[in-house]
Amino acid sequence: MSKVIKGGTVVTADLTYKADVKIEDGKIVEIGPDLSGDEILDAQGCFVMPGGIDPHTHLEMPFMGTYSSDDFYAGTRAALAGGTTMVVDFALPSPGESLLDALKTWDNKSARACCDYSFHMAVTWWSEQVFDEMKVVAEEKGINTFKHFMAYKGSLMVNDDEMFSSFKRCAELGATPLVHAENGDLVAEMTAKLLAEGNTGPEGHAYSRPTQVEGEATNRAIMIADMAGAPLYVVHTSCEESHEAIRRAKLAGKRVWGEPLIQHLVLDESEYFNEDWDHAARRVMSPPFRNKKHQDSLWAGLASGTLSCVATDHCAFTTEQKRYGVGDFSKIPNGTGGLEDRLPVLWTQGVETGRITMNEFVAVTSTNIAKILNCYPQKGAILVGADADIVVMDPGMGKTITAEAQASSIDYNVFEGIEVTALPRYVLTRGYVAVENGELKAKEGHGEFVARDPNATVNTALSKWKDLTAPRPVARSGIPATGV
Amino acid sequence: MSKVIKGGTVVTADLTYKADVKIEDGKIVEIGPDLSGDEILDAQGCFVMPGGIDPHTHLEMPFMGTYSSDDFYAGTRAALAGGTTMVVDFALPSPGESLLDALKTWDNKSARACCDYSFHMAVTWWSEQVFDEMKVVAEEKGINTFKHFMAYKGSLMVNDDEMFSSFKRCAELGATPLVHAENGDLVAEMTAKLLAEGNTGPEGHAYSRPTQVEGEATNRAIMIADMAGAPLYVVHTSCEESHEAIRRAKLAGKRVWGEPLIQHLVLDESEYFNEDWDHAARRVMSPPFRNKKHQDSLWAGLASGTLSCVATDHCAFTTEQKRYGVGDFSKIPNGTGGLEDRLPVLWTQGVETGRITMNEFVAVTSTNIAKILNCYPQKGAILVGADADIVVMDPGMGKTITAEAQASSIDYNVFEGIEVTALPRYVLTRGYVAVENGELKAKEGHGEFVARDPNATVNTALSKWKDLTAPRPVARSGIPATGV
Amino acid sequence: MSKVIKGGTVVTADLTYKADVKIEDGKIVEIGPDLSGDEILDAQGCFVMPGGIDPHTHLEMPFMGTYSSDDFYAGTRAALAGGTTMVVDFALPSPGESLLDALKTWDNKSARACCDYSFHMAVTWWSEQVFDEMKVVAEEKGINTFKHFMAYKGSLMVNDDEMFSSFKRCAELGATPLVHAENGDLVAEMTAKLLAEGNTGPEGHAYSRPTQVEGEATNRAIMIADMAGAPLYVVHTSCEESHEAIRRAKLAGKRVWGEPLIQHLVLDESEYFNEDWDHAARRVMSPPFRNKKHQDSLWAGLASGTLSCVATDHCAFTTEQKRYGVGDFSKIPNGTGGLEDRLPVLWTQGVETGRITMNEFVAVTSTNIAKILNCYPQKGAILVGADADIVVMDPGMGKTITAEAQASSIDYNVFEGIEVTALPRYVLTRGYVAVENGELKAKEGHGEFVARDPNATVNTALSKWKDLTAPRPVARSGIPATGV
Amino acid sequence: MSKVIKGGTVVTADLTYKADVKIEDGKIVEIGPDLSGDEILDAQGCFVMPGGIDPHTHLEMPFMGTYSSDDFYAGTRAALAGGTTMVVDFALPSPGESLLDALKTWDNKSARACCDYSFHMAVTWWSEQVFDEMKVVAEEKGINTFKHFMAYKGSLMVNDDEMFSSFKRCAELGATPLVHAENGDLVAEMTAKLLAEGNTGPEGHAYSRPTQVEGEATNRAIMIADMAGAPLYVVHTSCEESHEAIRRAKLAGKRVWGEPLIQHLVLDESEYFNEDWDHAARRVMSPPFRNKKHQDSLWAGLASGTLSCVATDHCAFTTEQKRYGVGDFSKIPNGTGGLEDRLPVLWTQGVETGRITMNEFVAVTSTNIAKILNCYPQKGAILVGADADIVVMDPGMGKTITAEAQASSIDYNVFEGIEVTALPRYVLTRGYVAVENGELKAKEGHGEFVARDPNATVNTALSKWKDLTAPRPVARSGIPATGV
Repeated sequence: MSKVIKGGTVVTADLTYKADVKIEDGKIVEIGPDLSGDEILDAQGCFVMPGGIDPHTHLEMPFMGTYSSDDFYAGTRAALAGGTTMVVDFALPSPGESLLDALKTWDNKSARACCDYSFHMAVTWWSEQVFDEMKVVAEEKGINTFKHFMAYKGSLMVNDDEMFSSFKRCAELGATPLVHAENGDLVAEMTAKLLAEGNTGPEGHAYSRPTQVEGEATNRAIMIADMAGAPLYVVHTSCEESHEAIRRAKLAGKRVWGEPLIQHLVLDESEYFNEDWDHAARRVMSPPFRNKKHQDSLWAGLASGTLSCVATDHCAFTTEQKRYGVGDFSKIPNGTGGLEDRLPVLWTQGVETGRITMNEFVAVTSTNIAKILNCYPQKGAILVGADADIVVMDPGMGKTITAEAQASSIDYNVFEGIEVTALPRYVLTRGYVAVENGELKAKEGHGEFVARDPNATVNTALSKWKDLTAPRPVARSGIPATGV
Repeated sequence: MSKVIKGGTVVTADLTYKADVKIEDGKIVEIGPDLSGDEILDAQGCFVMPGGIDPHTHLEMPFMGTYSSDDFYAGTRAALAGGTTMVVDFALPSPGESLLDALKTWDNKSARACCDYSFHMAVTWWSEQVFDEMKVVAEEKGINTFKHFMAYKGSLMVNDDEMFSSFKRCAELGATPLVHAENGDLVAEMTAKLLAEGNTGPEGHAYSRPTQVEGEATNRAIMIADMAGAPLYVVHTSCEESHEAIRRAKLAGKRVWGEPLIQHLVLDESEYFNEDWDHAARRVMSPPFRNKKHQDSLWAGLASGTLSCVATDHCAFTTEQKRYGVGDFSKIPNGTGGLEDRLPVLWTQGVETGRITMNEFVAVTSTNIAKILNCYPQKGAILVGADADIVVMDPGMGKTITAEAQASSIDYNVFEGIEVTALPRYVLTRGYVAVENGELKAKEGHGEFVARDPNATVNTALSKWKDLTAPRPVARSGIPATGV
Repeated sequence: MSKVIKGGTVVTADLTYKADVKIEDGKIVEIGPDLSGDEILDAQGCFVMPGGIDPHTHLEMPFMGTYSSDDFYAGTRAALAGGTTMVVDFALPSPGESLLDALKTWDNKSARACCDYSFHMAVTWWSEQVFDEMKVVAEEKGINTFKHFMAYKGSLMVNDDEMFSSFKRCAELGATPLVHAENGDLVAEMTAKLLAEGNTGPEGHAYSRPTQVEGEATNRAIMIADMAGAPLYVVHTSCEESHEAIRRAKLAGKRVWGEPLIQHLVLDESEYFNEDWDHAARRVMSPPFRNKKHQDSLWAGLASGTLSCVATDHCAFTTEQKRYGVGDFSKIPNGTGGLEDRLPVLWTQGVETGRITMNEFVAVTSTNIAKILNCYPQKGAILVGADADIVVMDPGMGKTITAEAQASSIDYNVFEGIEVTALPRYVLTRGYVAVENGELKAKEGHGEFVARDPNATVNTALSKWKDLTAPRPVARSGIPATGV
Repeated sequence: MSKVIKGGTVVTADLTYKADVKIEDGKIVEIGPDLSGDEILDAQGCFVMPGGIDPHTHLEMPFMGTYSSDDFYAGTRAALAGGTTMVVDFALPSPGESLLDALKTWDNKSARACCDYSFHMAVTWWSEQVFDEMKVVAEEKGINTFKHFMAYKGSLMVNDDEMFSSFKRCAELGATPLVHAENGDLVAEMTAKLLAEGNTGPEGHAYSRPTQVEGEATNRAIMIADMAGAPLYVVHTSCEESHEAIRRAKLAGKRVWGEPLIQHLVLDESEYFNEDWDHAARRVMSPPFRNKKHQDSLWAGLASGTLSCVATDHCAFTTEQKRYGVGDFSKIPNGTGGLEDRLPVLWTQGVETGRITMNEFVAVTSTNIAKILNCYPQKGAILVGADADIVVMDPGMGKTITAEAQASSIDYNVFEGIEVTALPRYVLTRGYVAVENGELKAKEGHGEFVARDPNATVNTALSKWKDLTAPRPVARSGIPATGV
C-alpha cells in the first residue's frame, strides 16, 4: 500500500520546491513530479514539511501522587494534532535510583504513544553506579543525551562537581549534556525570602527566578562543559542573559545550543500579574515568561542561528493540580501545555511576519533538533529513506486557539484566544495518516522508540580539538627536593 | 555516457553517508548504493562533496594597463586543481560607465573559463541610469548581488547616501548588496600621513588600514542596509571588530553575512614585517592580514554560524606588478592568490584539527554560498538534479604547497611551505572530469554563466518584516497654521 | 565684604561633610566649622554644592532670521534659577567663515550673560585657514574644544576626512574634539523618503533618526579620533547603541566621554505620538527622545562612569518658531529647553531614587565637566581658591514644573507637570547671590568668559601613549627596483 | 614639631598643583604656598601624593605550621619602602571559628605593624552565630567589608546559598561583600584530573584555573549580590572574562568594583613554563598570571574606570615553603610578593607610558580604595585634616628591582630585573617619616588600626533603589481553594 502526497511544495531546512512525495512501509521512497500510488493525499496549496520534533516534553509527569494530565497517549495525540510527529521525553531517576530502572518506568509509560518518541536520561545524582550506567544507556539503550537540573534543590538538582563529572563522562561516551539552567540555591533562597515577605501568589514564582538567575546558570554550565570537553544543550532558554552567555560561548569557539520555548517567544510576564489566580497559576513554569526585550532576543537568535530549536516543555498540570499552590507559589506544579500549538503559533508569528523563513521554521521545529540529537536524517528530513513523519501545512486553514477545541487533556490553554493562520491538513507518522483533512485519527501505541547513537559529528570534532589543545607538562630537569 | 563516483562517502552541509553518485549530461541523476555506469571513478576512502564555490575572485583584473596574471582560463584552471568548480567574479564599471557595458566586458573575459562562473555587479557611482540598469541586471542578466566599495577613494568608492540609494534599490529588486568594508576616507588620509612620515614599505599598507577601519565600515554598512530594508553580505571579513559588528547586527534580528578569506584564517600580519620587500609586498591585499586574536574570532564564527563563507579574493598580481609600489606602498596592487589552495588548506587547518566539522567545511566552501547567492541547489549540492560539480577529496593525498608546482600563473604562493593533508582525487565540473587521479585536465571554455534570480527566501522574509514595521504617521486633527 | 554659607553640608564629587564656606572677592577663601563673615547665608538642612555647569547650550541661536527665545541674558538667568552657574555655548562659523569672526559674534551675544560662560568652537568646514585659526583659538582664545557636526548635511556637517584632519589638529594642539553623532547622509535620505511617503508630522523627525543612526556615527567618530590620536567627547548621547560604542572604545583603552541630556534621561519617544501637533513639535530635538531601554542604559552609564556628564542642549525655540515645520517635520527647528530644570529633575529622579549618589550628582552636573573641559578646579569645586559658583540645594523645597512659573523666555516646558523635590535656596555666581531664598536676582552682564587651556592631563597622557605605539618602518636592505 | 613638604607638586585623584604641605600631630594641617615649619622635607621636582593603600594583603599567613615570611612588621616595612602607607589584611576564621576570635588573632599579629592597617573579615562558614557576629564586627569593630572565598574547596570556600545569606546580611548592615572569584568545585576537579594525567608541575596550577573559571565565579557572585541587594567588590580581577562580567553588571546599573593586581598587569603565564621549577613555583598564586590580551583589558579598565583599584595580594611564601609542592602543584602555597614594588612598577608601566594619568595612578593606588572601603578622606587624600600618609615620588630616582636589595623578607622577587623610573624620596605614615631620602626608617608598632564605618554612600543609595523596586504582591480577590 503506497501513499502519495500530491501537488504540494516541499519545504525543508534548506530547500523549497514543488514535488510529490511517495511513501511505503512508513518510509519516503520517492520524491519527484507526477508520482502515483495507492492512496493520494491532496497537498495542493500546502507546504509539505518534516513533522515537528519536540525535544522537550514531560508526559505523565508525577506530581504529589498524581500525574500531569497528558500522558503518552493524550500528549502524543495532541502533538500529532498540531503537526508534531516525535517527542523527546525525560527519564527521571529519583536521586539514588538506577538509571536503567528509571528507563524501564518511562518505557512502560510510552507504550501507548501515538507517535515516535525518544528519551533524554536525567542525571539527578552521582555515583560510580551512575558513571557505569551512563555507558549502558549511551551504548546499548539508544540515548545520547543526559539532562542535568541546576535548579529544584533538594530533589533533582546536581552541583557543579557532579555536573563536571557527568559532563566529562558524556565527553568520553560521545554523548551530549543538557541543562536546565537556573541557580537552584538562589531560587530556593529567594522563594523562602518572598514567602516570608508575604509574596505568596503566582507572581512570586516569577520574582523568585528573574532572568539573571537563568543567565548565571547558563554561563556556569557552559564553562563546566568546556572544561569537561563536551558540547552543551541548554533547554528552555528564555532570556537575553542566557542567550548572551550562549553567544559569548560561541564566540570562544564552544559548541553550545539554545532552545527557546514557543511560550517564551509569544507570552510575557504580565500573565503572572493577572488578577485571576487560576490564570496566573496556569502559566507557572520554569523559567517563567519574560518581557518583549527577551522575546526580541529569542526571535533574533532563531533567525541568526545563535539559538537552535523551539520546544514546549509540555507538562500539562490541571487547574486542580495548580491549586495545590494556593497560598504558597512554590507548591504550584511547574508546567504548561503547548505541544499542539507550537507549530501553528510559530508559523503565524514567525513565518507570516517575515521574522523567520519557512526553511528556518523547519530547521528550528524539526531538522536542527534531529541533527543535534543525532537522529537525522531518519527524522527531520524529507529525503528518500527517511521516516515518513510529515506535516502538510495548509496556509488556508486557520483558527482561534481555545482549550475547548483542543486535543490535549488539559482544561485550559495558555494560548487561548491567539489566532493562527495555518494548520495541518495531513500529519503522517511513519506513513500512518494521523491527521486527515484536519481530522485527528491518532492511533494508540503506534509510536516507537527512536534510538540515537552517540558520537555525532560535532561531538567527534570537539573531542579532536580538545585533544589537540590539552594541557601538557613542561619538561624540567633538576627539580628541587620537597620543602617544609 | 554516464559516470559513477563509486565507493565514496558523500559529505554535504548536513549529511554524511556512503553512496555512489551517478552523472549524466552534467547532472547528478542518481545517488545510492551499487550504481553502475559507463565510466567509474573510484572514490574508495574519499569524501564526495559539492565542488567549492568561490564567491569572491578578480580574474584578469586590470592594473596600470596590465592585468592580474590569472585570467578566467588560468584562474578557473587553478580553481579546478584545488576542487573549486564555480567562481563568482565582479563586473566593475568605471565611475560613469554603464553597468551593462561593464557586464559585456566581463562576459568577454569569461568566455575562456574552465568552470562555471557568475558575476556580482559593482555599483561604483550613482545616477538615474544606474538605478534603471540595476533592474535590467537583476531581472534579465541573472545577477542578484551588487557590490559596493567603501574604500578606494577617488576610484571605486561610493558614499553613504549613494549606498543607501543603491541598497534601497536592491531591496526593491529583491537583490542583495555586498560591501567591501573599509573607511576609504580614513585609509586615504592615513596613507598620506604614513608616506609623509617615511612609512613607505609594504608594512605601511597594514598600518594604513587597521582593524578598526574595517570594523567601522562594517558597522556603518549594516546600519545603512537595515535602514534601506536590505540584507547585507560583507566580503573579506578579516577581524574581530567586523565580526563583532555582524554579531551585534544579528542580535538585532538583521540579516547579515560575513565572508572570511582563507588567507586571513591562516596567515598573519607578521608577513608584512618580513625583511624581504617582495615577500611582504606579495601579501599586500585589503584588508591586510591580522593576528591570532582575529583568526580565532573568524574560526569561531565559522563553527558557530555567525560567519558564513570562506572565499579567496583571488587577484593574482605578479611580483613584477607588485614592485610598482617600491617606495610607495599605496601603489602596490592589492591582491593575492588562493583559489587553488582554499579547500585543502581549510580542510587541513579546520577539519583535521576539529575546529569545524566536515559538514561545516562543505557549508562554508560551497553550500552556504550557493544559498546566499540563490543558486542552490543547482550548485552547492549533492542532490539528484543538481549540476555535477563535485570534488572527491582524498584524505590519503597530501603535499607541501609551493609556487613551483601550482596551476596558477602567479610566480609565488602566499601559502608556500604549508602542508596540506588532503587533495582532490577527482574534480567534476558539470560532469566533465577536470581532475583525474590528481591530474589536471581543465578544458578551456567549458565554463558557463550561472544566472541567479532575485527574491531569495531571506530577502522576501525581510521585506515582509520591514513592511510590517514601517513608520506610520500619527493621525492628528487640528494641526496649527504654519509659523515664522 | 565677605559672605558665609552657614550650617550646610558640603557635597562635592567625592566628599560629603558639614562645613561653612566663606567667600570673598568672588572666590572661596575658607572652608571649615564656625566661620563668620559680613553676610550670612543660612544653609541649615541644605547641600552646598559646586554650581552646575551646562556643557551644551545654544543661546540666541539663529533660525530663519529670528533667534531662539533664550539669549545669553534670559538663558543664563534661567540657568541660575535652576542652580547652574556656568554654560558652555557653541561659536558656530558658517561654512567658509573665519573661526575668529564667528567667535566675535558670540562674544557680542554673551556680553549680557548673568553667569560665567565659555565656548566650544565648531569646525563646520575645512581649509588651511581653519587649520591655522584653530591654533589661535586654542592658544590665545581660551577654547580647547572643537565641535564637529556629523549631521545637518548641507549646512554644518563635515565629512570623515575633514573630521580626521580636524581631530589630528586637535591632537597636535592638545585640544579635544566634540561630535554631534548622527549619520547626516542617512538622516537626509530618510527625511526625503519619509516626507515622500506622507510622514510629515513631528513623529517623522524621530523616524528619520533612529538610534542606530546615532550609534553608527558615534562608532565612526571614535575610530577617527583614535586614528588621529585625540580623545573624544560625544555630545547628547541618547541611546544604548551610542553608549555601547563608547563602552567598547573604553575597553580598547580609548579616551571617550559621553554626555546624556536630562531630557533623554526622563522623557521618551511617546511624546512624538501625542495627538497635539504643538506638543510633539515642541519636543523635536536631535537626537530625538528614545524609550525606557535607552533610559536605563543612560542611567547605568552615569552610575558606573561610562557616561560622564549631564547636559541640556538648551535651545529654546518657541511654539511659533516650531510651527514653521507644519506640514514638513524637517523644517521644525531642533531644540528644547532644560537649563532651569536640569539639576532639580536629575536630583529628584536620580538621587532621590538611589540611582546615583549625591556625589555622583555633583560629578555629572559639574565636576566631571570642569575636568574634561579643563577649567577644574576654578569651576566645579568647593575648594579654597575656586570661584564661588555655588548652589545651596534645599531638599525641603519642591514644586511641580510649569512653563508659567519658569524664568526661561520660552512659552512651554518639556518637563511640564513633573514634580521635583529639591530646589536651590541660594545660587552664587562668583560670589554674587543670584538666587536668594529661592528668589531670582540674576544680574545682566555679570557673567565672564572662562578661558580654558589646552593640554589637559588626559590629552597629554594619550599623546604619550600614541607616540610610544606609533607605526615604525621595517628596516630593509636590498629593496628591488620598481616594476611595471 | 611641625613638618613641611616643600617645593613639590601635589598630585591627587583629581588635582595637580604646586603647593607645600604642612603636618602636625600626624595630620595635614595646611596646604599652600610658602609654608614654614620645624622640619623641611625637600620635594623639589617630586610629586606629593596620598600614600598607597593596599586593599589586599596576607601578612603572617599560616601555612602548614609555618607562616608566610612577611609578618606585619616585615610586610608593612616593605610597604613603606615602596610608598604604601596602609594595608588591609584579612581576618580568616577557620570554618566553625568565631569571627571575633579570629579578629583577636589578627589583632595580635598586627601589633608590630609599621604603618596603619585595617581588616576585612572573612566569612568562611555560615550559622546564626556568624549572622550575629557580623553585626558586631560591622558596628563595633570598624570592619565594613566581608570576604567570601568561592575557591579553596574544603577549607575556606562557601556555597551559593551561604553567599546569598551573607550578602543579604551585608546589605542589612550597610557592609560590602568581597569575593575571591574562582569556581572552587571546578578547580578541585581539574586539579585531580591534571595530577592524574601527570601534570604535576607548577604550570598545572595555571591549567587548573583558566580564565573562564574566574569569569564564571565573578559572574555568579555579581548575580548573587544583586539579588541580595548588596554592592560587590571582586578581588584580584585578573582576566577579560571577569572584567567582562563586571562591565556587564555595571551596564545593568549594578554596583561592582574590580581590583587588578600589579602582578597581573605586568607578568604573564609564560612564567609558569619556565624550566626552573623554583622560578615557576614562586609565581604560583590564584588566580594565576594570564596573557597580553588580559593585561590590555585590565589596563583599559583602570583608565576607563570599569576597574577601580590596584592591589598585590601580598603573601610572601619562601622558596622553601613553595617546595612543599614539588611533585604536586596543588600543595604549592599560593602567594607572591609585591607590596614594595606596586607603586614604582605601576608608575613606570602606567604613568610613564601614558596608559594612565598621574591622577588615575593616585586614584587606583589609594583614593578609590579609601572611598570604597569608606575611610576617605582620613586616608587616600591630601586634604587638611587628613592623616599625613604621604608619598613623595621622585621621578629622578630609579632602579632595577632585585630580591637582594628589597626590604621584604622573602628570598626572591617576581619583578626581578624590571626597571622602575621613579621611587619614593619620602614616605610619611601619620606624619612619621618612614622613608627619608630613600632610606627606610620604618618604626615597629607605629601602625594603628583604621576603623571603617558601614553605610558608605553607595551602599545607602543602592538600598534606596532596591527598596523602591522590590517585588510587591498582586492584589487578588477570589483566590480559589487549594487543590489536590
